[in-house]
Amino acid sequence: MMHLAKLHATGNDFLVTTDELDAALAVVLCDRHRGIGADGVITLGPGRDGADAIMTLRNADGALAEMSGNGARCVAWVAVEAGLGSDTDLVVDTGSGRRTIALERDAQGALASATVDMGAVTFEPKDIPLDAPSAFDLEVGYHGATFTGDAVGVGNPHLVLPVDDPAAVKVASFGPRFEVDERFPERTNVEFVGVEGRDRLTMRVWERGVGETLSCGTGACAAAAAAHRRGLVDTDVTVVVRGGELTVGLGETVRLGGPVTHVFDVDVDPERLTS
Amino acid sequence: MMHLAKLHATGNDFLVTTDELDAALAVVLCDRHRGIGADGVITLGPGRDGADAIMTLRNADGALAEMSGNGARCVAWVAVEAGLGSDTDLVVDTGSGRRTIALERDAQGALASATVDMGAVTFEPKDIPLDAPSAFDLEVGYHGATFTGDAVGVGNPHLVLPVDDPAAVKVASFGPRFEVDERFPERTNVEFVGVEGRDRLTMRVWERGVGETLSCGTGACAAAAAAHRRGLVDTDVTVVVRGGELTVGLGETVRLGGPVTHVFDVDVDPERLTS
Repeated sequence: MMHLAKLHATGNDFLVTTDELDAALAVVLCDRHRGIGADGVITLGPGRDGADAIMTLRNADGALAEMSGNGARCVAWVAVEAGLGSDTDLVVDTGSGRRTIALERDAQGALASATVDMGAVTFEPKDIPLDAPSAFDLEVGYHGATFTGDAVGVGNPHLVLPVDDPAAVKVASFGPRFEVDERFPERTNVEFVGVEGRDRLTMRVWERGVGETLSCGTGACAAAAAAHRRGLVDTDVTVVVRGGELTVGLGETVRLGGPVTHVFDVDVDPERLTS
Repeated sequence: MMHLAKLHATGNDFLVTTDELDAALAVVLCDRHRGIGADGVITLGPGRDGADAIMTLRNADGALAEMSGNGARCVAWVAVEAGLGSDTDLVVDTGSGRRTIALERDAQGALASATVDMGAVTFEPKDIPLDAPSAFDLEVGYHGATFTGDAVGVGNPHLVLPVDDPAAVKVASFGPRFEVDERFPERTNVEFVGVEGRDRLTMRVWERGVGETLSCGTGACAAAAAAHRRGLVDTDVTVVVRGGELTVGLGETVRLGGPVTHVFDVDVDPERLTS
């Protein structure tokens, strides 16, 4: 039997286990009809060289992924339950390098939210990657509608498009077209972002290779950084996504925070799932 | 804490519990990102007046549903584990009346498949319901493509369309148009069905109000009954759906069989899920 915890961070859901697994098993576990169901599955192992833990993430398609901000926040809950790290923070090695996660507890002492340092964001075309002289004021359009926004790198590429009202945007129409804009050689995530105030954005996100999702941690970081560069928000920003509210703190590095919910623990027989 | 079993029958997945629940809790439990995730949730209670059990099904949208063949087959596993019924069969009261479920075990004695008597199918327009003089040879078309098929009632309405190759059909384009054909006052499920032999059909299904699904028990019954009436198959038919293989036995009533997989048992705190 294999033991897993299912958690979600603003609707971005992950399975976390201490067992190793290959791509085929990740696909089976993440299958929402015949498996347990999740956006990805994370193997949590003991850390080395000063890290409390190491996390290896596979997406629902089985592929190894470098990093997920919401995934790292979910890992924190499991790591703390397993006695790794301290009561207030955790150092985790990920596919994108070492990350520090700060933990916050509710009145009953249960872990309620987690904030992960996502490293630096970049507007450098070569680091996004973007095949254009500048990341700023990129224009995209489809069927007569045009948008102007900025490209941002947060370990993965983003195109942040300011709009009046994200709720009114036809994300399912625009998302797949803008995702494959030829200036992004590795395709791009696309964020439609509305400004509610100096400390508040609303966002809908089209995730590269996935579609519209309830939440995207790197997308929230990109949205806040791009809005800040345009002078629309200050350095501490709440980003309202369909699945809840994330907080982004902008500095030399970017901090992503928000609630983490432990949904259930489960034991499954992988042999039964593959039948 | 609430205890539930998660099962699937050819990819049609259900939660089964002995606890009562309202529409709001059903929605939360069936949420695939923030809850456990399922097509529906079934409350199993003790039977009366000769029945071993009674099942109450709510779909993922929280609405009470009359009957699901695959849901009833999943219930059998839980009922047997709970000591209801005999080792070989179970009598269950459903929203569509009393149903008998025959159980089959594997070499290790574990319940592996279940066959439910679905009652009679009908080609009577008033019972489907269909607003046309006959259920036969109905023509539907969209964007230059036309199909001719039959309407069938299996407690719910179906439009069965024979095609050369279901895999080549643009189900996502045709399904939503044919679902709302004005001759079906309560809309309809739509099946695209290919004939592989006298005892074998392949099927893709567009479920009313849901979209294309991995499997549909009543759809398989409708497909077999319509193909039999057209002289294309005999009375014992395997229906290959995306999620696996179902068997349909045609007689005065229709028997739906196939594998049932118990995926996991889980305990959840409903209060935590609603947060």
